[in-house]
Amino acid sequence: MPSGHTSAVILASGSRSRAAMLSASGLDIQIQPADLDETSVKDACRDQGKSVDFVAARLAREKAAAISATNEDVYVIGADQMLDCDGQWFDKPPNLEAAAESLIKLRGRSHDLVTSASIVRNGEEVWRLTDRATLHMRDFSDRFLDQYLSDVGELALTSVGAYQLEGRGAQLFERIEGDYFTILGLPLLPLLSYLREQELIPS
Amino acid sequence: MPSGHTSAVILASGSRSRAAMLSASGLDIQIQPADLDETSVKDACRDQGKSVDFVAARLAREKAAAISATNEDVYVIGADQMLDCDGQWFDKPPNLEAAAESLIKLRGRSHDLVTSASIVRNGEEVWRLTDRATLHMRDFSDRFLDQYLSDVGELALTSVGAYQLEGRGAQLFERIEGDYFTILGLPLLPLLSYLREQELIPS
Repeated sequence: MPSGHTSAVILASGSRSRAAMLSASGLDIQIQPADLDETSVKDACRDQGKSVDFVAARLAREKAAAISATNEDVYVIGADQMLDCDGQWFDKPPNLEAAAESLIKLRGRSHDLVTSASIVRNGEEVWRLTDRATLHMRDFSDRFLDQYLSDVGELALTSVGAYQLEGRGAQLFERIEGDYFTILGLPLLPLLSYLREQELIPS
Repeated sequence: MPSGHTSAVILASGSRSRAAMLSASGLDIQIQPADLDETSVKDACRDQGKSVDFVAARLAREKAAAISATNEDVYVIGADQMLDCDGQWFDKPPNLEAAAESLIKLRGRSHDLVTSASIVRNGEEVWRLTDRATLHMRDFSDRFLDQYLSDVGELALTSVGAYQLEGRGAQLFERIEGDYFTILGLPLLPLLSYLREQELIPS
């Protein structure tokens, strides 16, 4: 068995950064993005006054459960990331105008990234973890913002905050507190630890 | 001026991960690795009972100063990273046998990565920062170690701890505390902040 290879694990996420993180760490994991109506789940949760941690955990679990339903005996990893800025939840921007609006709202303030991962096997959640990081965005100029969006283009639409800290997004921040993998969208070290416990990767 | 481009800054380091971090963040910086006898500086500092923070800061400054000497009016970034495990300082392993020895010593224990950056202009240090992260290495098996070194190969020789956290090295760790950029070898966000203050990159 090659190091880290396992066919008994599926990542139920289409996120490039999650796949890249797992791949860089040496895992060869199948990818099957779950097709979930996240907006309706979020809206229902908001109406019920649920916390952002609750919503992220529920979305992660539902994504994993959806893929688990057609993959018997397979460990399915679901993940979700929510951005919370003083109680306002941000979604992935649908276009560059929306990305600019998000960044203008976040500029000069702190926000939290709440990242949740869930592992479901045969319909049952066998592991879960939710972690949080706090990011302090600097008060950049409008001119900087225009140049930033022109440089990153569509990549801004692939994350809830319209930035990648591992890329040009680093220039948006003053300070960050919390786990880097959590910021990228997956609490990698605890996840690897669980996969080792289950002997799905070598220990 | 394109975003982040500046010809008035040189990175005095041959480290691929430092260059990659700056490049990913959008900076187009010239690279001129300093040729410094690090071992003799470390040995002298150890004999004088200096702290690991002192040594990292001195090495960072000396690298920047060496390149500054032949580059008038240029901001030169020097950087160094020291690994401290219960008072023992680790160097980059010269070969895979030494890498295995390092990892066996670090296995199941915590160590600190002390990262220092210095900016020198016209021979004068104009900015510096030293930061520290603590990494908890898990008690992996000998078999895992063999497979790990066989997978990463010579890449193990490019860092003081014989690992890259951004790569397969993630499988070596239980837990990390501290800034990710510090772990990669450069306190990126404070460095960018200084470059903005000097109007070397757009703010």
